[in-house]
Amino acid sequence: MSELRRDPIHQRWVVILGQKWKEVARRLEQPRPGSQQLCPFCPGQEGQTPQEIFALRDSETRPNEPGWRVRVVPNKFPFLRMEEELVRTGEGVYDKVAGTGAHEIVIESPTHDQDWDGLGPGGVNEVLQTYRERVRSLPGDVRFRSIVVTRNYGPGLAFLPHPHSHIVAFPVVPRRIEEELRNTREYHQRKERCVFCDTVREEIGEGRRLVAEGRSFVAFVPYAARYPLELWFLPIQHGHDFGATSDGDLPELGEHLYEIIRRLHILFPYPAYSLVLHSSPCGSYAEARYHWHIELRVRLPLAEGFEWGTGFFVNPVAPEEAAHLLRAIEP
Amino acid sequence: MSELRRDPIHQRWVVILGQKWKEVARRLEQPRPGSQQLCPFCPGQEGQTPQEIFALRDSETRPNEPGWRVRVVPNKFPFLRMEEELVRTGEGVYDKVAGTGAHEIVIESPTHDQDWDGLGPGGVNEVLQTYRERVRSLPGDVRFRSIVVTRNYGPGLAFLPHPHSHIVAFPVVPRRIEEELRNTREYHQRKERCVFCDTVREEIGEGRRLVAEGRSFVAFVPYAARYPLELWFLPIQHGHDFGATSDGDLPELGEHLYEIIRRLHILFPYPAYSLVLHSSPCGSYAEARYHWHIELRVRLPLAEGFEWGTGFFVNPVAPEEAAHLLRAIEP
Repeated sequence: MSELRRDPIHQRWVVILGQKWKEVARRLEQPRPGSQQLCPFCPGQEGQTPQEIFALRDSETRPNEPGWRVRVVPNKFPFLRMEEELVRTGEGVYDKVAGTGAHEIVIESPTHDQDWDGLGPGGVNEVLQTYRERVRSLPGDVRFRSIVVTRNYGPGLAFLPHPHSHIVAFPVVPRRIEEELRNTREYHQRKERCVFCDTVREEIGEGRRLVAEGRSFVAFVPYAARYPLELWFLPIQHGHDFGATSDGDLPELGEHLYEIIRRLHILFPYPAYSLVLHSSPCGSYAEARYHWHIELRVRLPLAEGFEWGTGFFVNPVAPEEAAHLLRAIEP
Repeated sequence: MSELRRDPIHQRWVVILGQKWKEVARRLEQPRPGSQQLCPFCPGQEGQTPQEIFALRDSETRPNEPGWRVRVVPNKFPFLRMEEELVRTGEGVYDKVAGTGAHEIVIESPTHDQDWDGLGPGGVNEVLQTYRERVRSLPGDVRFRSIVVTRNYGPGLAFLPHPHSHIVAFPVVPRRIEEELRNTREYHQRKERCVFCDTVREEIGEGRRLVAEGRSFVAFVPYAARYPLELWFLPIQHGHDFGATSDGDLPELGEHLYEIIRRLHILFPYPAYSLVLHSSPCGSYAEARYHWHIELRVRLPLAEGFEWGTGFFVNPVAPEEAAHLLRAIEP
């Protein structure tokens, strides 16, 4: 049984899974499963995963059988479980909550070894539609305060190579989103404006850090980028909830994401990157002043010990240079 | 010229070094310098580094010549430079400061390939004496608000294999220390006690997460450890400033560090770990309610994409199990 722990010094929540050191040590020694092994995310292997929650599939095909294009299943090894009761307890000076929540896997395509550049803009749009469906449905459980989508691609980053995303429903608001909420509220109190909207206006006006600009979305390298290749995708019109994105707008986001990931595959033979979708907390914790967005970071083999200890990031490359580099690649 | 940038959404400072992408790409392709190459930190190569700032050396040897046991030099490739004037400017909606500060390297021993387990407790104590000397001296420059010592050891973590530490003097308080300061102050206002002191009492009383306990220092796996093998070292008596540690107390800290690093070298053939010393900000920014400490984290090849996007840590191993494992190793 996993539990969430918090110490009073840092006020950050940590999931403690409670595995034996021996299990972890065994994982460190074994090479990660390669393409040779039977993949539980491939068509025909549907029985290897828990029962599907949602799928985009061809008509006349049945759940948990081939015919799907995108498939959502509960994670077999979840960080947080729906079955746990939300019990908050103290342990000495510390706080503890049972590991309540949901942890789902989005299998993004039937093809074992195909990133979003291979899916095309339409395929990426179907993945985004799937995210949206889950971000709309999961808040039905009132214990959940925040739904986060994360995606890792590339060598060493994902445990199974078949492209997939994680959707996690949390019983607390994750720290990174909480920080953004706090600063968004403070800025709003001072200026009566959205700090994200001001940033979007600044970036469109300034232009040197822009990578893509459309009717509804903008993509840019942020002014204080933490990593050499970091990108943010934001809706130009204010909106706090990714789940409310319309069918008219969503395909444009899919196109921008497709094009940028295509550029990464041109820049690197086998890129490694992480992506996260930050949307407002849900239910009674929703905050209309928040502005949802996607953050993407290319993982480069540069030492990062300094950031760990201090929270102080050192980025060797100017964001203007990074944006110029990315714009110059013909997708 | 490096600059510090901050965006209004996250309020975090990032050092932008402004190197060309081509330089960074070249570094990514080249293997890191191995033991074969001439090491600028080895005795006889003193001319390869800038002039030394401080050294513990045998009597009758001269600065910048062999005979030293620990040697401090300015970093040849600093994140922050003393020569820069502290100019704070705006850039659109953003904040910018010139990269003012100091960035020093502590060369921890003349031996090219020897971690602290090879130095013995006495050698580790001399490294700690050197840290203390710099933490005492650097605040003489009133532009510096915070002095942080960090140390990375192991494959892929340090650019040069010859064991060394970084000492950085910042013109702003780094985020991780600022968070601890904020929570320390809030806790003090509520309870009129130090949150670190309460944590130390709790850990000594509880005992299951303790790894070492002496007259003046305690080492334990924290209750909400972020990583399978994470350790904190704290003075048992309240103290905000590492620089004020007495000659009577410092050797005990050296012994605890030596013993734990020795255990890591028994547990792993070539361990990778990071260490950071958090002390109160300095000069007029000093905060007596803070409690200085050292954090140590073993680097394991586990995917960490989830933490990046959410600030939400997932630790597979219970801290009680990790402490038990570390205690059981005979150093």
